[in-house]
Amino acid sequence: MTKDKEKNKLWLYDTTLRDGAQGEGVQFSLEDKLDYIRAMQDWGAPYIEAGWPGANPKDDDLFAALRAEGAFRRPGRIAAFGSTCRPGTRADRSPVLRSLAGAGAATATIFGKSWDLHVREVLRVDEEENLRLIRDSVEFLVRGGLEVFFDAEHFFDGWKENRDFALRVLEAALSGGARGVALCDTNGGSLPEEIARGVGEARKIFAPEILGIHAHNDGGLAAANTLAAIAAGANQFHCCWNGYGERCGNADLGTLVSLLQIKMGHEVMSAEQMARLTYLSRYVAELANMVFDERQPFLGRSAFAHKAGMHVDAVLKDSRTFEHIDPALVGNTRRILISEQAGRAGVWERLHRLRPEIGKDHPWVGEAMRRIKEKENEGYQFEAAEGSLDLLLLEVTGEWRAPFVLEDYHVWSDPARGQLDSVAVVKVAVDGEALHLAAEGDGPVNALDKALRRTLATFFPALEQSELIDYKVRVLDGSSGTGARVRVLAETRFGLAKWGTIGVSANILRASAKALLDALYVVILRERGDLR
Amino acid sequence: MTKDKEKNKLWLYDTTLRDGAQGEGVQFSLEDKLDYIRAMQDWGAPYIEAGWPGANPKDDDLFAALRAEGAFRRPGRIAAFGSTCRPGTRADRSPVLRSLAGAGAATATIFGKSWDLHVREVLRVDEEENLRLIRDSVEFLVRGGLEVFFDAEHFFDGWKENRDFALRVLEAALSGGARGVALCDTNGGSLPEEIARGVGEARKIFAPEILGIHAHNDGGLAAANTLAAIAAGANQFHCCWNGYGERCGNADLGTLVSLLQIKMGHEVMSAEQMARLTYLSRYVAELANMVFDERQPFLGRSAFAHKAGMHVDAVLKDSRTFEHIDPALVGNTRRILISEQAGRAGVWERLHRLRPEIGKDHPWVGEAMRRIKEKENEGYQFEAAEGSLDLLLLEVTGEWRAPFVLEDYHVWSDPARGQLDSVAVVKVAVDGEALHLAAEGDGPVNALDKALRRTLATFFPALEQSELIDYKVRVLDGSSGTGARVRVLAETRFGLAKWGTIGVSANILRASAKALLDALYVVILRERGDLR
Repeated sequence: MTKDKEKNKLWLYDTTLRDGAQGEGVQFSLEDKLDYIRAMQDWGAPYIEAGWPGANPKDDDLFAALRAEGAFRRPGRIAAFGSTCRPGTRADRSPVLRSLAGAGAATATIFGKSWDLHVREVLRVDEEENLRLIRDSVEFLVRGGLEVFFDAEHFFDGWKENRDFALRVLEAALSGGARGVALCDTNGGSLPEEIARGVGEARKIFAPEILGIHAHNDGGLAAANTLAAIAAGANQFHCCWNGYGERCGNADLGTLVSLLQIKMGHEVMSAEQMARLTYLSRYVAELANMVFDERQPFLGRSAFAHKAGMHVDAVLKDSRTFEHIDPALVGNTRRILISEQAGRAGVWERLHRLRPEIGKDHPWVGEAMRRIKEKENEGYQFEAAEGSLDLLLLEVTGEWRAPFVLEDYHVWSDPARGQLDSVAVVKVAVDGEALHLAAEGDGPVNALDKALRRTLATFFPALEQSELIDYKVRVLDGSSGTGARVRVLAETRFGLAKWGTIGVSANILRASAKALLDALYVVILRERGDLR
Repeated sequence: MTKDKEKNKLWLYDTTLRDGAQGEGVQFSLEDKLDYIRAMQDWGAPYIEAGWPGANPKDDDLFAALRAEGAFRRPGRIAAFGSTCRPGTRADRSPVLRSLAGAGAATATIFGKSWDLHVREVLRVDEEENLRLIRDSVEFLVRGGLEVFFDAEHFFDGWKENRDFALRVLEAALSGGARGVALCDTNGGSLPEEIARGVGEARKIFAPEILGIHAHNDGGLAAANTLAAIAAGANQFHCCWNGYGERCGNADLGTLVSLLQIKMGHEVMSAEQMARLTYLSRYVAELANMVFDERQPFLGRSAFAHKAGMHVDAVLKDSRTFEHIDPALVGNTRRILISEQAGRAGVWERLHRLRPEIGKDHPWVGEAMRRIKEKENEGYQFEAAEGSLDLLLLEVTGEWRAPFVLEDYHVWSDPARGQLDSVAVVKVAVDGEALHLAAEGDGPVNALDKALRRTLATFFPALEQSELIDYKVRVLDGSSGTGARVRVLAETRFGLAKWGTIGVSANILRASAKALLDALYVVILRERGDLR
């Protein structure tokens, strides 16, 4: 990219591995972090903040591994994060700064305090010393040949209470040779107008090459604050996938890229990169071992889901009526939800996929709605269980014949014994033939799952290529503890297809058995082409 | 309240039961809705939109029950929601409008189309007829003695494409006698500047007594859009608890009230009402049977949680350093999280609670950190399991003696048999005495839980007053299905105290047993005063 093109660019600065990893429940192993960085570089992220070498051994290992695999030579700049030298010490003797300089990354981002309250109460040094250590630390890293960014921690809170001091902090970093400064709303409580004023002033006074905004979501305004900063002259935005980050999280990468690109006409990404957003947001959630927030703007499964009857009618007539953007732009898809509130249109749309010949007034539509409501009264929800829903619809059409029947099953567990402590015995009938088989497993559900798959694999080899990829248990009646009804959702992958199946019972084993059976049925029907 | 006071008021209009219930997974039973309305009236919500009488039998039952219990005479206005009469029909013959007029509520809110695209493509009538049916419908309800609000559906999209028509829709409603109109960003994709321009124009041209804003979160901007509307002259804001609502949800009640009151100085609520926000948001999540989003601004458990070592140090010195508001204002509390990234300060803070005499440099602090990290490597997370964490810390202090020991246990399940299909046998040692007891249960976990509690209740009567209020299972290694390691989190209530305990194992029964045991230990220790 030429220098000129860079000038008009809006820079995405990803801090998922550093600030995002501060989020409650977010955890990345070393291998996760390496996978993440490879995926982000493949995708074309311009900046990826990887971690804090020298602060914890895991991040030291990470930078060593990145050096070993030549990651710093690949496109997608990896930034090493750290602090300034300590008060009263020289920058060139600071172990933190030396770690940064030796990490192998071409970019270093260091943070320092720009709120006088913090300088007085937390750091406990005088203001001049705070400015000194910022300038010296930046200078030391610049002399080492690094591109240096400075994160002005608590800039907006500081600017509101002591404007002059906050601005002198930026000056110290820039005079030390920083390529850019990022203004941080560290506590996340600022309003868009305050952000706009602070950024506008910094842009006017210093005109740094790169002026970043680092917003948190404590007021539910991280996206709006970032947009306000960009409108006021910021050209770099810090963000994390899925809005991960301390407390209420950081500004969400997917929301910002989508807003900037689709709503505001900035060129942050190519169309191909945009179309990978939905996939990547889920991939990162998997790495971080976090439940994906399906209400996430643009990228959640609910973002283009239509439930109420009238909305479904309208969206099938003209998608603009209830969709603010084309979901394909961000790699997402429309979903018509089947639920109590769904009108005939939604149920028909799904039935129609299975039996294209039926019209909207076919009696099956009403019958399917009746059965869905009945099941919903028992605690079923088909919104995440399209597999079980399809089976229900096949039942309505009268074309459903179970390829096998689970006639009986027993499970024994001696958990105090260690691994493979459970045994399941199943009795299955296939084409009139009764089969008895047993399997051991870790825990009763696993034993049952194994026994079923083993018994059936000889008859239905496709089962061996299918995989149970998620298994969730939800207690339905919060107050009755382990005696409450539970809803089990199983997610199955078979080739490229993925679908959920559901079981509800006061017995976790019975609920699991129902969800597992449905999953196996759907594999067999898909293999035969009876379901798509 | 006097007419004059009402003039400067900012009106909260709660639509959780109506628009919020369109959210994926949100479900309220009739009893839930009645409980909800009572709670909102107790709290002092000015407007509560209850549902759509005449549209579905459940809401008819709801309004009948509200009439029966005299709910419409209590403070807190209950609004009945509905549509205009149908094209080509008279308002006074519309079954929808008659249902609204006869529902018993003193307030009716009806919606109509203000985007010409919808009028053409969905309604398929001419523009004049659309205006006629809005005016006539409002007039009919006003003549019936109702306070009437009009929701201008898709106002902002309509206004962008056909400004004149969108404004004439507002005029039709107001000339029909509506007390207020609400401008709806139905597809949720508008930007704050667009919202501000549309609201400002409506305020200038019509100056309605009540001008509402109804924002959705499809662009992650629902809060910012509502604030922009209020700055431009709106004096009523639609919102839902926990941001429930279709797709990405509606504007979140808790976020908006907190922002308006604490950040912007509006008087939306009394201090006492504000302090109940955190409690009510969780109460509503329980009613809706939704997992609470702990990252929710202001009200989530993570909103004032501090994890990173340095942040914990600073926040213990001066809370302003890392907290944008005092959490007590909204009924929330600060939490110091114990995790891999926690510094000594967090671990010390927790140990110090148990043993006030120990200093920051006590060797127990380092030993506790070592054990926590070891457990975290196995998949434990103590952030939501303070009970198990306290037990670990007691172990470190050497003062831990288990009040009983689970020596062996076996579980049999015949799930095909129906209820109480599982039997657990436990062998427990209390004070050197070995006890064998069995219990039946619905499913293996329930049987085990019952057997443990029954065996122990004679020795520890406090166990009978404790209650397991939540039980969650999370699969840790997404890809190995039912054979994956699972993390079981149990939440226990004992008097006013609530805490979580955790177990991790490839066997769901073993993980459950660990979490249940920890829960029982903590009850016993709290009863004895050994834990607070």
